[in-house]
Amino acid sequence: MTGQRSDARRNYTHILAVAEAEVAAQGAQASLEQIARIAGVGSATVRRHFPTRKALLEAVFKQRVHDLCDRARTLCGEQDSRSALVEWLRELLAYSIAARGLADVLSYQPLQDEATQDSCAPAIGAAGASLLRKAIDDRTVRADITIDDLLVLIVGIALATENYTEPAIQADRAFRLAVAGFAANNT
Amino acid sequence: MTGQRSDARRNYTHILAVAEAEVAAQGAQASLEQIARIAGVGSATVRRHFPTRKALLEAVFKQRVHDLCDRARTLCGEQDSRSALVEWLRELLAYSIAARGLADVLSYQPLQDEATQDSCAPAIGAAGASLLRKAIDDRTVRADITIDDLLVLIVGIALATENYTEPAIQADRAFRLAVAGFAANNT
Repeated sequence: MTGQRSDARRNYTHILAVAEAEVAAQGAQASLEQIARIAGVGSATVRRHFPTRKALLEAVFKQRVHDLCDRARTLCGEQDSRSALVEWLRELLAYSIAARGLADVLSYQPLQDEATQDSCAPAIGAAGASLLRKAIDDRTVRADITIDDLLVLIVGIALATENYTEPAIQADRAFRLAVAGFAANNT
Repeated sequence: MTGQRSDARRNYTHILAVAEAEVAAQGAQASLEQIARIAGVGSATVRRHFPTRKALLEAVFKQRVHDLCDRARTLCGEQDSRSALVEWLRELLAYSIAARGLADVLSYQPLQDEATQDSCAPAIGAAGASLLRKAIDDRTVRADITIDDLLVLIVGIALATENYTEPAIQADRAFRLAVAGFAANNT
């Protein structure tokens, strides 16, 4: 039984490593069949570990999302709450551009019953919300903004520049424009 | 010969009608094989008419893009150049949300050699650029903005809200935020 379990774990780790490489190369539309082929397992085995494409992508991006949540906690201690929020959004955008597929995962609206689960979009939403709350309390950001509004803009900029030859440059221009829109004196 | 040509045209029109329905239902990722199956033709026939997925989507959205270009010309005659630009961007966003897949087509960076071709992204870019130029000339919009910046935000908002249960509501919130960012007094 223990042997079977550790086999299953090795299998999972191996499939996940292949999935990470494939998603990095192909983006969110990476073929599950191709992942199975490279991993040397059947499609059914991949689907047992990752029943949906979303489940696979969630697993692939778990560590990056964890890092972004850590970063939000650190930035919450900064004096300038507006700069802290903008810096975190900028890092989220940079991650989303570098890691193809992350923006797709974050584009799924967090469902009510997912909120307590260890899933990417609610984790990022909660991390960003704490930074936004502080900035609103300090009156450095418009009070009528929600974290969903900001995530739609960041995820959107990442998705809309995915096919650009130099996504980071165009994304940065759009980011500055979006940031200008949520100043406290801007209603 | 004439018979063969009109057969080919009927075939094209029929495949395009099926493609429109499939793209409306499935979005930009609609299966070319499924389109061939429903149209009752072979995959090779679909591929002869539409060599790439982008070519198929371009054909599907040609009329909508044409309407948006017409609308830009009308709005260019309006007194308030800022309102005209914002209204056109709002209509582009509404179209992109209603017509699944249009945002994907517009997310392809116009290539230099495509600029003269009858392709969606350059046509939309040129239409929006004329409205933007007028607004900048009137000093009602920041002078450092390009039409690409605005299209990235609009296309991005459409893509990022695609999986929402009510995309139009969340998209409108993000749109207002983006619009606030490009006021002339906002640098």
